[in-house]
Amino acid sequence: MKYARVIHEGVTQNAAERDGLLMLDNAKLVSFDDVTWLPPLNPTRQPRTILALGLNYADHAKELAFKAPEEPLVFLKSPSALTGHRQTTRRPADVDFMHYECELTVVIGRQAKHVKRGDAYDYIAGYTVANDYAIRDYLENWYRPNLRVKNRDGATPLGPWFVERGDVPDPMALALSTTVNGKLTQSGNTKDMIFDVPFLIEYFSSFMTLRPGDLILTGTPDGVVDCRPGDVVVTEIEGLGALMNTIAAA
Amino acid sequence: MKYARVIHEGVTQNAAERDGLLMLDNAKLVSFDDVTWLPPLNPTRQPRTILALGLNYADHAKELAFKAPEEPLVFLKSPSALTGHRQTTRRPADVDFMHYECELTVVIGRQAKHVKRGDAYDYIAGYTVANDYAIRDYLENWYRPNLRVKNRDGATPLGPWFVERGDVPDPMALALSTTVNGKLTQSGNTKDMIFDVPFLIEYFSSFMTLRPGDLILTGTPDGVVDCRPGDVVVTEIEGLGALMNTIAAA
Repeated sequence: MKYARVIHEGVTQNAAERDGLLMLDNAKLVSFDDVTWLPPLNPTRQPRTILALGLNYADHAKELAFKAPEEPLVFLKSPSALTGHRQTTRRPADVDFMHYECELTVVIGRQAKHVKRGDAYDYIAGYTVANDYAIRDYLENWYRPNLRVKNRDGATPLGPWFVERGDVPDPMALALSTTVNGKLTQSGNTKDMIFDVPFLIEYFSSFMTLRPGDLILTGTPDGVVDCRPGDVVVTEIEGLGALMNTIAAA
Repeated sequence: MKYARVIHEGVTQNAAERDGLLMLDNAKLVSFDDVTWLPPLNPTRQPRTILALGLNYADHAKELAFKAPEEPLVFLKSPSALTGHRQTTRRPADVDFMHYECELTVVIGRQAKHVKRGDAYDYIAGYTVANDYAIRDYLENWYRPNLRVKNRDGATPLGPWFVERGDVPDPMALALSTTVNGKLTQSGNTKDMIFDVPFLIEYFSSFMTLRPGDLILTGTPDGVVDCRPGDVVVTEIEGLGALMNTIAAA
């Protein structure tokens, strides 16, 4: 089962896909163009904690001229950064490099503390796709604060679908890709993560409690390019869907 | 007006101070010992975003042998880290340095985007005290991920009181102090912040929306020492109260 979270005629509701249309909660069928897409999050299980991985694919670390980390490189994100499918993300004026990051996103389903990796999947509700845009200019600081790199309003499209865990047989073998204006610019596979999903759940839950609705953005493979106002960026993960976003000037 | 958030006989409720006792919502008077203290947060305005400053007092930056930052050094915290007054915080086994940080904490009262510093106080609901413990061992990494430094469960006591903005005439002139087992180890004043509260609200709201209930932990002055299991740590801010915490072994 997969569903979106949409606004249709002023009403926020879930929607499922039916033959290229959206079936709303009230059984009405509407086109993808007739709704505003929101992040596909359960309204009663909004994320309190959003964890995001840096340099979790060795090829991407090499691309950025970093050594692959020996333990997970993790930062927290504000829910303020989230936006939906088909929304617009702003590129600040006077920055030199803003890049997309196509990322498998895990949605936690059960309270998790001291979980062993062999049990980790039991704590997952499902998956979605994130595009965790980064403004690289703001990272040029020895202290490496990433607040402005990763937390501007609307800087993280999420969706279009929430896909239940049972519908994703092997999340560690999914093709990821990004196109910019229809041209393929990023291509990878979740099998190449340095720290895989079960490891991450064991690691995080060893010192902090994960709660239903919390998110883990698991990092991106290599192939990032600068995005400019007007660019249409589609981040896609096999079996989860294609998340579209348009860049606009700030 | 100031209030605490407490559990008494299984019921979570607000409590006000009356002559050294707590007056509960049901007008019952009980002793400070008769309740479990929670972070003094409005249950309908839980923080979605918790911002915390590093090195925001020049003397503390010097103490840690860092140059004072030229723009705010900010990280996000998970709400999972919060705990209440008179609670216990765990020191992990096999770490060399765990230190307290007494911090003025701002509670946002109104949605804030593009706020000018001259208007910043209008967006503040009130203040409380945080002890933003840090495990310095986990910072020894070029990438400086601070997840494990600052986000373990219960690593951030908050309280005891929420004090409304109008009851704090000048938040930029408050004495801060910390005692460990009754001995004064940290002493400072909020007037020595590098980036003051109005500046921070202007800065954050220039690129991200702050929402009611969001928190800003504004950094700590110098005078941090290693804390060991059994230590009783009291972080106090003039006019806001004294937040007590006990360290235990993990």
